[in-house]
Amino acid sequence: MAGWQAKLDQKETLMSITRIDPEHRMSEAIIHNETVYYTSVPENLDDDAEAQTANALAVIDNILTRVGSDKSRILDATIFLVNLEDFPAMNRAWDAWVSPGNAPVRCTVQANLMNPKYKVEIKIIAAM
Amino acid sequence: MAGWQAKLDQKETLMSITRIDPEHRMSEAIIHNETVYYTSVPENLDDDAEAQTANALAVIDNILTRVGSDKSRILDATIFLVNLEDFPAMNRAWDAWVSPGNAPVRCTVQANLMNPKYKVEIKIIAAM
Amino acid sequence: MAGWQAKLDQKETLMSITRIDPEHRMSEAIIHNETVYYTSVPENLDDDAEAQTANALAVIDNILTRVGSDKSRILDATIFLVNLEDFPAMNRAWDAWVSPGNAPVRCTVQANLMNPKYKVEIKIIAAM
Repeated sequence: MAGWQAKLDQKETLMSITRIDPEHRMSEAIIHNETVYYTSVPENLDDDAEAQTANALAVIDNILTRVGSDKSRILDATIFLVNLEDFPAMNRAWDAWVSPGNAPVRCTVQANLMNPKYKVEIKIIAAM
Repeated sequence: MAGWQAKLDQKETLMSITRIDPEHRMSEAIIHNETVYYTSVPENLDDDAEAQTANALAVIDNILTRVGSDKSRILDATIFLVNLEDFPAMNRAWDAWVSPGNAPVRCTVQANLMNPKYKVEIKIIAAM
Repeated sequence: MAGWQAKLDQKETLMSITRIDPEHRMSEAIIHNETVYYTSVPENLDDDAEAQTANALAVIDNILTRVGSDKSRILDATIFLVNLEDFPAMNRAWDAWVSPGNAPVRCTVQANLMNPKYKVEIKIIAAM
């Protein structure tokens, strides 16, 4: 097989949709066209905003490792924060976690979330 | 024409931007790089959250059918819900509609919407 | 080098991640796979919603020009608006700015923002 043929075949494989842990209501993560879609919620629901953010970010690390990417390849992050006054706490966890020199575009807005114990929810788009 | 040339030409065509029903303020949907962008609002404004969600999802089906995709190829959904207490009603409509085994990544947050009668608004990114 | 090889090499280059003005916390804009990610906030914080929107949109123009794209190639816009009653003012600035015939998909929701002086924040995904 010619080299260009192998590359095109690889490209077509990348165009397929890969679902990580698909459940009825939603998939945990999805990969398409070298791009990973994922939304992270914290698992430590009784903790404060800094700890919940650190946890949600660690969950992002886990899922990106599973798919062969990592936090240095995150393109875009949307952070939904329940309490405006938690912005500094969220930022402390973020700044301690972010890959230096490789930070994504980031947008943070206030929003109430579906679990009353969530203080933060983080939606990302990453590159494979 | 060699096969690889045809494939590359097709790839370049896919990289162009296709707008569905472009109006001055916004386009209904846009396709670029094998990816479809779309935001759905309900048309049955006097109905409850379950019926509005079902309607907004049916509108998604219509637009995806028009562009040659379908709900099994949705990658990411962001659901803006006006009333937190409508979360179960929204989920009932969603669970009845979603393509089994092919659910997208999903993120739901509370947000007030621009039309006071909207109870839900659904933003999606889908694969062609 | 054969033409198809040059094209494949170009494609692989496009798959890399390009960060515009990366800082520790976030990058200003990111390009990956012919797609640009960017979130714009206004710089004229004491102005009204129409002027803040016009400013945030001009900032989008600047960044897209820097990366070799422009507003006619925006695919998707999410507008976070602090005050619902500013919807007409935001729309006046938007309608005066948008590229006729090339408007993106658009989703507007109410959200409080991290700087109490922001009246609007605009997140976009654009094509290169």
